[in-house]
Amino acid sequence: MIVLLLAGCAQPALRGTGDLGLIIERAAGRVKLIETTGRRELASIEGLGDLAHASVVYSRDGRYAYVFGRDGGLTKVDLLRASVERRVIQAGNSIGGAISQDGRLIAVANYEPGGVRIFDAATLEPLADIPSAYGDGTRRAKVVGITDASGSRFVFSLFEAGEIWIVDASAPRAPRVEKIRDIGKQPYDGFVTPNGRYYIAGLFGEDGLALVDLWNPEAGARRILDGYGRGAEPMPVYKMPHLRGWAVAGGLAVLPAIGRNEVLLLDTVTWREAGRIAVHGQPVFAIAQPGGRRVWVNF
Amino acid sequence: MIVLLLAGCAQPALRGTGDLGLIIERAAGRVKLIETTGRRELASIEGLGDLAHASVVYSRDGRYAYVFGRDGGLTKVDLLRASVERRVIQAGNSIGGAISQDGRLIAVANYEPGGVRIFDAATLEPLADIPSAYGDGTRRAKVVGITDASGSRFVFSLFEAGEIWIVDASAPRAPRVEKIRDIGKQPYDGFVTPNGRYYIAGLFGEDGLALVDLWNPEAGARRILDGYGRGAEPMPVYKMPHLRGWAVAGGLAVLPAIGRNEVLLLDTVTWREAGRIAVHGQPVFAIAQPGGRRVWVNF
Repeated sequence: MIVLLLAGCAQPALRGTGDLGLIIERAAGRVKLIETTGRRELASIEGLGDLAHASVVYSRDGRYAYVFGRDGGLTKVDLLRASVERRVIQAGNSIGGAISQDGRLIAVANYEPGGVRIFDAATLEPLADIPSAYGDGTRRAKVVGITDASGSRFVFSLFEAGEIWIVDASAPRAPRVEKIRDIGKQPYDGFVTPNGRYYIAGLFGEDGLALVDLWNPEAGARRILDGYGRGAEPMPVYKMPHLRGWAVAGGLAVLPAIGRNEVLLLDTVTWREAGRIAVHGQPVFAIAQPGGRRVWVNF
Repeated sequence: MIVLLLAGCAQPALRGTGDLGLIIERAAGRVKLIETTGRRELASIEGLGDLAHASVVYSRDGRYAYVFGRDGGLTKVDLLRASVERRVIQAGNSIGGAISQDGRLIAVANYEPGGVRIFDAATLEPLADIPSAYGDGTRRAKVVGITDASGSRFVFSLFEAGEIWIVDASAPRAPRVEKIRDIGKQPYDGFVTPNGRYYIAGLFGEDGLALVDLWNPEAGARRILDGYGRGAEPMPVYKMPHLRGWAVAGGLAVLPAIGRNEVLLLDTVTWREAGRIAVHGQPVFAIAQPGGRRVWVNF
């Protein structure tokens, strides 16, 4: 009877999920489950495939994490059971993903084949496939910089096409796509500001960034930081920087410059340059402390 | 055996806590447990005493809620078990409370006897008692507008004393108190901006508000919105407004005016008036939509 009791009760201890998180152990191909109240490791979880350039989003209730692997794997991790709940290989080469505001949809941005795929967050059932066809329609661009926006929208950029697309997945099996063309050459990453209003794509092929006001997407994209210096004295680019909304702090956005030993400060009202800070190498990430007093930059 | 199995497994189903919340059912003296993903009621929880003017804070992991009742009751609710875990009557008349950033401490602001009491968030064991003595030290002020600040700090205002106190509870049994005096007459509520930097107290006895920069508290309090009109054509005040950081949106703070059918707009960089909006009555709460596109006002 005791054995049966134990077997019947093989359920993890009750605990909240608001302080749980995953750390990607890239070289080992596994993730570490941590909790941030006692600052402890809770478990290691294996079987997630190639985790180079992996990224992660969380469900609204904090129970599940969705890990996007470089090998096109989409893995749903149950943080309470510390185990892989579901896993699909949904493309050959992917770069990241997003979860809809209501938590029901997962969108994955793919390099190969280029496009975005939308999945049911509960079951990982595929719901829609949006090829990133451009030009005469025979080529597909690599998709970068995917984020969620208000409603059931996802926003992303097409590297070779120089376009930003806004997908409304309110009807997830028949998503509507709004295309903003000619936003600049080779958008390489994008992010949304923490208030959800502005989507900004960095350009690799030109000296500036593209800004879309998601409250007014019909207005198209606006060029900002035009001629900030990427082209002036081009240096070899050792590592592509990443853009995240995490570095919006106190009315400033702090962005790594491409190929320059600088971070750029933008005024988040006018979206004009508000200054630059010299750093010790080519920045990759700029991350603001919650509260915005400090910003960390790595190389 | 089946009975034993069921008894041994009487544990709630596993679920995340990030989408759980409580609604205060003031007249009924109970709280309703809800989840915001499916937008459903999960349970009603009784036994929390007088819930007039009750307020609630949540633990970092989202498992527990701490409910501050008007009768001085401090109740710790386990959201996963939908039950009262602990309850203490810690004063005769209290007005609200706060949880420290690390989740370890609960501070309760009391009217009677005036002061702040600090408790262990896990056990509700009392750790410190900070009487709100002022003037010659024989009187105690009602404490209002308590909030947490970075580190293990709490900030609150003393109504009769016209003071703002900053308590550093890093050593919770021996908290250090920094007093800012002469901040204006009768602070009636206070809030901290979402970035944690500014504490603002509304004044009932004067025509303005007091602002403290928590990055630089040595500079004391600065008067803002001086002479905004409360005194100009005083109207009877039917209901005291409340101040919350929830109404900071897009570089503006939206505050209910006292005794006027208006909300006031403040620029959160200069802290000067940026406009007013006429509304249909004396506002009580102003709450911004997440993302800051709209603000709701009630009366």
